Amino acid sequence: MLPELNSLATFRSHLTEAPAPDAAARAGCEARNGQLTKPPGALGQLEEVAIWYGSWRGTNRPQITAPQVIVFAGNHGVTARGVSAFPSEVTVQMVANFKAGGAAINQLARLAGARMDVHALDLDHPTGDFTSGPAMSEAELLAALQTGWNAVDPQADLLVVGEMGIGNTTSAAAICHALYGGAAGDWTGRGTGVDDAGLELKTQVVAEGVALHPVTDGLEVLGRLGGREVAAMAGAIAAARVLRIPVILDGFICCAAAACLAQIADGALDHAIAGHQSAESAHASLLDRLGKTPLLSLGLRLGEGSGAALAIQVLKGAVACHSGMATFAEAGVADG
Amino acid sequence: MLPELNSLATFRSHLTEAPAPDAAARAGCEARNGQLTKPPGALGQLEEVAIWYGSWRGTNRPQITAPQVIVFAGNHGVTARGVSAFPSEVTVQMVANFKAGGAAINQLARLAGARMDVHALDLDHPTGDFTSGPAMSEAELLAALQTGWNAVDPQADLLVVGEMGIGNTTSAAAICHALYGGAAGDWTGRGTGVDDAGLELKTQVVAEGVALHPVTDGLEVLGRLGGREVAAMAGAIAAARVLRIPVILDGFICCAAAACLAQIADGALDHAIAGHQSAESAHASLLDRLGKTPLLSLGLRLGEGSGAALAIQVLKGAVACHSGMATFAEAGVADG
Repeated sequence: MLPELNSLATFRSHLTEAPAPDAAARAGCEARNGQLTKPPGALGQLEEVAIWYGSWRGTNRPQITAPQVIVFAGNHGVTARGVSAFPSEVTVQMVANFKAGGAAINQLARLAGARMDVHALDLDHPTGDFTSGPAMSEAELLAALQTGWNAVDPQADLLVVGEMGIGNTTSAAAICHALYGGAAGDWTGRGTGVDDAGLELKTQVVAEGVALHPVTDGLEVLGRLGGREVAAMAGAIAAARVLRIPVILDGFICCAAAACLAQIADGALDHAIAGHQSAESAHASLLDRLGKTPLLSLGLRLGEGSGAALAIQVLKGAVACHSGMATFAEAGVADG
Repeated sequence: MLPELNSLATFRSHLTEAPAPDAAARAGCEARNGQLTKPPGALGQLEEVAIWYGSWRGTNRPQITAPQVIVFAGNHGVTARGVSAFPSEVTVQMVANFKAGGAAINQLARLAGARMDVHALDLDHPTGDFTSGPAMSEAELLAALQTGWNAVDPQADLLVVGEMGIGNTTSAAAICHALYGGAAGDWTGRGTGVDDAGLELKTQVVAEGVALHPVTDGLEVLGRLGGREVAAMAGAIAAARVLRIPVILDGFICCAAAACLAQIADGALDHAIAGHQSAESAHASLLDRLGKTPLLSLGLRLGEGSGAALAIQVLKGAVACHSGMATFAEAGVADG
């Protein structure tokens, strides 16, 4: 059962009091893994993620039968500063494309056998330009978190959250710069494809925003520098944590949303793995800050949840091996 | 239609005269890729492999509906030198496990919707110990190539070849050392998991074998230092080249088989991509020699075709996006 989310304070407490994974299931998964018909460790990272998945699902023979992909969309006031290669109208056009089944995420969700939901958050009302004020009020932040929180199907056994929002790599860069410091340029990349002059401007905009909002608390950073779809992703990832639903994180924007949760509570992302390392330049550093090793590294930089949805297939392979393989004893194979 | 394979000479000529991919289909795939609803290049390596796949299938909207996984098994005389952590009996035991559906490759082939075939090659008669003579006679080499050649389903639209053969990383290391030079230690790794002393012995055995067989022609190297299952993999990869069936290469042993083909004919592996980079230490160097960028790098070192079978899912994702996504015009999305 997912508790109600009434306030930013309850959001914090749900996250800090979220349950641990099942230690007995983890021990059972580790024991089973050691008996499967393969040399020890021969399935590499697949072994680790299968054990991780089983520990969150509370069984030593897990299955993935009900993955959910949720795409959140929002518009950003900071686009007025000219930070994107695409106009803001593309956000609503792409939402129509998601609903019609024509986007990359539709194909990848279908291939993964995943339910896909799309939530467009108040696209006619972009967030505030964070270089002149906060992106969202506390009430707007709470509403966006609630949209994500309530979008998670409690029956799902795996969650991917994706996004669409022209301007949101700028927002994600500002979040990272606020949370982790360094220089604005360390966290600012080309997004959908700005040129050198565009990158310089974008970096300047990120620096201005963070200078105007000298905050480091995850929720304050999210509200002042984030976007509605970014906050909704954070809300959904937090709900999954409470429900013990494993999450595969997507690219830079998804991980920036997740980083706000990690700032609020230790272990807030223990139920999450990194689906991929994207081509957005700061994503590798962000994954490093989050302590996550990506499953894939294919030069993707699309968002939408696309890399994470593709990584569902890898996790399914890991779980299929873990739960489906014979043990040495069952197969009558000498174990070295 | 697959031509008959009557002699080693016809094998060479089939390979050197194999058809090119469809240039018009490649151009069609590239044009379509540029119109899909995503920023240019945003699907990274997925875009490249979808175009590659379409060019070999002769269409700008390819589908993957009939993948085939073939596992070849053989035994190696060189195991008498104590080069493996497992006894030779494990080869036949694992063949039984493949047939019963209990191995990793069974789970991964099923997940990929692939037909799976298993060919055990004369397991009661290991190849010769290549440190005292050739592993195979020319007749034995031809028979093994023919097994692979004839194992390919001409109706398959994607091929993965895997192997099982205690001792075969030693054989693969010797093949690479013979083809590419360097030191024996550059190409010798821990296989299923030998300790430091075992690795030292294995390296010595590889050096001895290559010193005894100073040959560089791909088929001579394959016959003198290879194994029946290694040659069968080469035969299957070559048949797929003739049939224009795309191939996903597996780990170190599969790539060593493929390297023999690359030595025989330029372009012999143009129909093949690398499914993954394995944890076997020399695989990265071998992929580099073959000019192949792996789709996955998950620390696998199991063989059986497991990494390549998992990579089918990635290729399926690439092809699903390429063929299923809407164009900017179809979706009414502004293209930047």
